[in-house]
Amino acid sequence: MAAKPSIPKGTRDFSPIEMSRRNYIFNTIRESFHLFGFQQIETPAMENLSTLMGKYGEEGDKLLFKIQNSGDYFNKLTDEELLSRNAAKLASKFCEKGLRYDLTVPFARYVVMHREELVFPFKRYQIQPVWRADRPQKGRYREFYQCDADIIGNTSLINEVELIQLIDHVFGKLNIRVAIKLNNRKVLAGIAEVIGEPDKIIDITVAIDKIDKIGLDGVVAELKSKGIGEASVEKLLPILEAQGDNNQKLDIIANTLKGNATGEKGVEEIRFILDTLKNIELNSALDLDLTLARGLNYYTGAILEVKALDVAIGSITGGGRYDNLTGVFGMEGVSGVGISFGADRIYDVMNQLDLYPKESIHNTQVMFVNFGEKEAIHSLKIISALRKEGISAELFPSSDKMKKQMGYANSHNIPFVAIIGEQEMNDGTVAVKDMATGEQQTITAEELAKKLKA
Amino acid sequence: MAAKPSIPKGTRDFSPIEMSRRNYIFNTIRESFHLFGFQQIETPAMENLSTLMGKYGEEGDKLLFKIQNSGDYFNKLTDEELLSRNAAKLASKFCEKGLRYDLTVPFARYVVMHREELVFPFKRYQIQPVWRADRPQKGRYREFYQCDADIIGNTSLINEVELIQLIDHVFGKLNIRVAIKLNNRKVLAGIAEVIGEPDKIIDITVAIDKIDKIGLDGVVAELKSKGIGEASVEKLLPILEAQGDNNQKLDIIANTLKGNATGEKGVEEIRFILDTLKNIELNSALDLDLTLARGLNYYTGAILEVKALDVAIGSITGGGRYDNLTGVFGMEGVSGVGISFGADRIYDVMNQLDLYPKESIHNTQVMFVNFGEKEAIHSLKIISALRKEGISAELFPSSDKMKKQMGYANSHNIPFVAIIGEQEMNDGTVAVKDMATGEQQTITAEELAKKLKA
Repeated sequence: MAAKPSIPKGTRDFSPIEMSRRNYIFNTIRESFHLFGFQQIETPAMENLSTLMGKYGEEGDKLLFKIQNSGDYFNKLTDEELLSRNAAKLASKFCEKGLRYDLTVPFARYVVMHREELVFPFKRYQIQPVWRADRPQKGRYREFYQCDADIIGNTSLINEVELIQLIDHVFGKLNIRVAIKLNNRKVLAGIAEVIGEPDKIIDITVAIDKIDKIGLDGVVAELKSKGIGEASVEKLLPILEAQGDNNQKLDIIANTLKGNATGEKGVEEIRFILDTLKNIELNSALDLDLTLARGLNYYTGAILEVKALDVAIGSITGGGRYDNLTGVFGMEGVSGVGISFGADRIYDVMNQLDLYPKESIHNTQVMFVNFGEKEAIHSLKIISALRKEGISAELFPSSDKMKKQMGYANSHNIPFVAIIGEQEMNDGTVAVKDMATGEQQTITAEELAKKLKA
Repeated sequence: MAAKPSIPKGTRDFSPIEMSRRNYIFNTIRESFHLFGFQQIETPAMENLSTLMGKYGEEGDKLLFKIQNSGDYFNKLTDEELLSRNAAKLASKFCEKGLRYDLTVPFARYVVMHREELVFPFKRYQIQPVWRADRPQKGRYREFYQCDADIIGNTSLINEVELIQLIDHVFGKLNIRVAIKLNNRKVLAGIAEVIGEPDKIIDITVAIDKIDKIGLDGVVAELKSKGIGEASVEKLLPILEAQGDNNQKLDIIANTLKGNATGEKGVEEIRFILDTLKNIELNSALDLDLTLARGLNYYTGAILEVKALDVAIGSITGGGRYDNLTGVFGMEGVSGVGISFGADRIYDVMNQLDLYPKESIHNTQVMFVNFGEKEAIHSLKIISALRKEGISAELFPSSDKMKKQMGYANSHNIPFVAIIGEQEMNDGTVAVKDMATGEQQTITAEELAKKLKA
């Protein structure tokens, strides 16, 4: 016997019930994207490594899945190169392509390649899997979906406002209670300048970012360990400890940043977003969180993160403003802002809270029992008519024992079973059993169609 | 400036308009699958190479995209192995995973891995991309979608009947005129036996399969070149030349195969399928095609192929019965039957015939012109209310020149533009321009919602 097959670690099969649930999430996000005027694109799973490498830091480069070239690539290598056994260096000779690591870099590449066809602002969305050779662990997979919406080629803060509304709309539809956290990279940069440590912005941001995990004392200790002086840390404390509602927090930070151009710009941006959103009713709390930092790689303005209120899990959506995403591909000065819904974490949250509406699960509406060839052919005609009415129907394919056929209907949660024996064939009727109540009634095929459409 | 980015050859980006069209095709197929009681699964893009290798023949193994292992795999290799430069052999040391080549082998792997959870017959569908390192050419890509529906764990010919109806339903919905061609592998095996060349079934099938391309004389020449004797070829001719309707052709072949058990079984299977389908109205022609062969790898019963009538292109859907798909993974005796819709060829046909209904293209229903901050905030409130009614609406994000804003609406085929200036703000109205007719009317926000929902 062949070895029992398996799948690569960190990857998953999705069963029919899991697919129904995932599609419910994807469809909800997709419909919301359309409602807000975003348009879908898709990019290939494989990108040239020259597109991907160097975009995610050194660590990211290592986490790219690289695809072996076809053909006799060995012949191009010297004995010395081969015997060096330098995997990282030789990988670049063996591989020209890799699997996409996120949807952002392929999007930037798309914009640059298609710049002539695009009309800006370009509001695009993309729902596709990405791959990372990360160590698999609970909730972290090597293949997972991202759902990104970006507006590129426009600097108006209305875009930030729209994206916050979009986040609110999606989680409202999914019935997940969330808090949307907002901050601004210019505020963080301003803080670093004001406390006299402009060069340490990365260290400061990384430390601040951990406040949820290590607490205020932990952050202070980390800042000091990075060589940030007592006096500078002292100046940071009011920001880290800022309490009150959004306006009160904004006043504290505005006060600290007074006279710092970058910081004041950041405060002004936050104020516009908060003030504008006061005109629109949101389901979710929108919290100014001065400790929100998010990675530093490309964000330059507003940054956003979404936390589920009823499940302990990392951020389930994030995003922000970037001023030069396409610069790395030679197209300078194109500003954009985007968000990414973490579909797999949202799926975990939905599963834990069991938030799927009953009608989100796809089932056949009626199964016809198979009593033999004559009855089967008779049933097929009725089934064909039902399908024309948009009713999903199936015939059990073989005339197996009743128990087996009913077991199939049961295990597939098919709500109605139709039984056509000789009597029903002669009468032109169908005996229909309601699987939930056990009730059975004999009706015509037309009545059955009407019943199932109701 | 950075080098102009590109994508790997044989792969494609899909623009918003292309995505709308592709989604129309995928949604039509998906809805049909549901109507017929099929359930969706998904499998990972990456499979273990041990799952994939040896399943597609030697040529197929070469066309697999292999993924480089992470880590220092070089250290496990001797100097001798490295210097052998044997790419094929070393690939197995460098790579443990590959991208899926089709959806059939991953499905077989899925069935074996999940056999305990499955209730048979298992009617699954799967719509996912596959990857092949084929030489790219017109209509042949390295990344393309397959849409497969299979019924596994049931031998009834009702399944074949249902799949033919499903094909007919899908192409009816897509408005593509097709001919469905039917044959049976047992008939082909019977023919080889009857003409006294049972061992040459592969050569015979390969030759017959080319009849469309090289004509009857070409097939005869090829058969002779494979060492099939004059007398045997003579016996084949009536089959290759069979004319008439399905019943007449079936009679010819039944006559030839009389007394051959395998062949008679095949004739009987075809007759059941044709007779049963006489009870159901099909849009498409169903043609018994005794020259239809399809690859030999795993089909054992009915074989099917679909040709578009109005575009010259290869088969756009195919499938058949297999008796032992899962045997290679140690699960014997599970019969199934399936079909695969070639989404990318269907897309080419739809494009050539321009068969997309207008409503299949996703557009925003109304764009609000942006005259400045005050008007924008006022518009956002109305837009928010429209979206709650399910109407897709967007605000142009910045107060750019009218020409630019109208240009955006035009290029995105947005049918209505809403204009709110100071006058409208004071009156609580919206000026709405119909972009097709140029007509403009001033109405209330509620009237606008009503108009757009109609």
